[in-house]
Amino acid sequence: MNIDMIRAAARRLEGHIRHTPLFHSPFLDELAGRRVWVKAECLQHTGSFKYRGALSAISALAPENRAKGILAYSSGNHAQGVALAARQVGAPAVIIMPADAPRIKIGNTRALGAEVVLYNRVAGEDREAIGAGLAEERGLTLIRPFDNAQVIAGQGTTGLEIAQAAAAAGIAQADVVVCCGGGGFASGIALALEAEAPGLRVRPAEPAHFDDMARSLRSGTRLSNAATSGSLCDAIISPTPGELTFPILQRLAGPGLVVTDDEALHAMAVAFNMLKVVAEPGGAVALAAALFQAQAFETEDVIVTISGGNVDAEVFQMALSRFGADHA
Amino acid sequence: MNIDMIRAAARRLEGHIRHTPLFHSPFLDELAGRRVWVKAECLQHTGSFKYRGALSAISALAPENRAKGILAYSSGNHAQGVALAARQVGAPAVIIMPADAPRIKIGNTRALGAEVVLYNRVAGEDREAIGAGLAEERGLTLIRPFDNAQVIAGQGTTGLEIAQAAAAAGIAQADVVVCCGGGGFASGIALALEAEAPGLRVRPAEPAHFDDMARSLRSGTRLSNAATSGSLCDAIISPTPGELTFPILQRLAGPGLVVTDDEALHAMAVAFNMLKVVAEPGGAVALAAALFQAQAFETEDVIVTISGGNVDAEVFQMALSRFGADHA
Repeated sequence: MNIDMIRAAARRLEGHIRHTPLFHSPFLDELAGRRVWVKAECLQHTGSFKYRGALSAISALAPENRAKGILAYSSGNHAQGVALAARQVGAPAVIIMPADAPRIKIGNTRALGAEVVLYNRVAGEDREAIGAGLAEERGLTLIRPFDNAQVIAGQGTTGLEIAQAAAAAGIAQADVVVCCGGGGFASGIALALEAEAPGLRVRPAEPAHFDDMARSLRSGTRLSNAATSGSLCDAIISPTPGELTFPILQRLAGPGLVVTDDEALHAMAVAFNMLKVVAEPGGAVALAAALFQAQAFETEDVIVTISGGNVDAEVFQMALSRFGADHA
Repeated sequence: MNIDMIRAAARRLEGHIRHTPLFHSPFLDELAGRRVWVKAECLQHTGSFKYRGALSAISALAPENRAKGILAYSSGNHAQGVALAARQVGAPAVIIMPADAPRIKIGNTRALGAEVVLYNRVAGEDREAIGAGLAEERGLTLIRPFDNAQVIAGQGTTGLEIAQAAAAAGIAQADVVVCCGGGGFASGIALALEAEAPGLRVRPAEPAHFDDMARSLRSGTRLSNAATSGSLCDAIISPTPGELTFPILQRLAGPGLVVTDDEALHAMAVAFNMLKVVAEPGGAVALAAALFQAQAFETEDVIVTISGGNVDAEVFQMALSRFGADHA
């Protein structure tokens, strides 16, 4: 993994991805007690940065492998990122999803042209076995959601944009808080900033009780979460830091940040009121950390990522009914 | 009014306004049955294009008039646009608002540094008299929300951006549906498109029962609405087309479009799900027309504006609970 891979990914992605804005709002500054900048990846195609990584990985394949097709396991943003990216390069995509995934997510993935194969996780069906069978039969290439160098390179293109926007805004020193599951987004951004904006330091943000990355960074070894579900921030729940991503973050990232589900909902409402953008709980944890954990930062400027690929309308309503009138 | 005023406004606004994106989403195309492009002015500062017009007008004033201060009557987006624009050029701003306006709007306007003067509309207090007294006493300059040439020029900068983005996307012919109250936004865009993209034609969109512009365009004379309140689309309710704006739209605009409150709420939910942006009902009427009134269009491409300066959280929840699960 190096900066050249990220620059090459940026060239492949050009003309496909949206260069998302870096928002600044005096209202956010007031809430946070410092300057807050928001990299709005919710405005990316499919609502999340996952599309960058998926397109990077698929466009890096040899044409004959692309033509045979792509395989992914995901019920979330990675599924839709892979589906759209595959469609754009004319590659067939097979997405393996649990049969009990929300129908909306299954429908969205199919609407993007992917073949969705369902497995029964409750009955103990093994998605890896199903995937391996399909991959062998059809010659599909598996795209992992974060432990894939080209996926990390694609997410890193967000870091190139952050570096450029920060330079334009005169920001030389800042913590860059990144919503973190397996660490693909955080590690890609960290590599880009190392080369392009060395005064900017990534800090992963995670939901309470699913802070495997924060604990792993503290202990120096990859630790797992006790549970695999049970947070509103389901978009960024993963069992353990990635094999590729962890060493990168160990070398480059500052201490992790941990926010409650309530803080994430509150940050969603602030994004609604102040920025007019839609975040999902997992995509709002970095903003939540910047807004509600002032004591965790020492830099005058804090940059955060925000995303919202699969926002459940009921969860959003909950955020608004609890926190929507706070800062309108 | 001419294109040179709009180009001059664009130069004064550069570095202050956000150049908002023109979004395209295959999901919207599918719903509408044609290609739909969304000019996301909800991502403008204060959530609405009103900031462009306010900054254009205030920055065009002679320095001695700016220093004396600005006066505006508004309880909505114009208030916040004027407050922010005045603060940015160092001008004092006095905003006259009804005492029964939502506390949130009063608070937002004060938070932007304006002095808010309340009047009791229920008791029949005359805001014009209050404003005239203050203006004389302090030498304030009144900025009207739409019947002001420099305001129209500022709104027209949106049209310059639409023309540029349309050219980049290869769109030579399109209807451009613009949310319309008094017609400042629609007439400014129409003037910009006349000069820069003559194949693009403005069509004003209004809420049902408040379609004074559509009826006036049909009849060739300025007609009024029967009521002055009673629509969820309160952001774009005005009694009658403007003196300056109507002749411009009469010369340049196509037939008006009229949408129901339900269609506006539905469009808000679609913007939430597909674009991850927050619109208010009045800022969603153009998108609603494009999505739900296919028979009204003949062009393959339709461009719509969307905005959302003062989104009531309860209204947004209503939109989500009724239409949020439709197209997620």
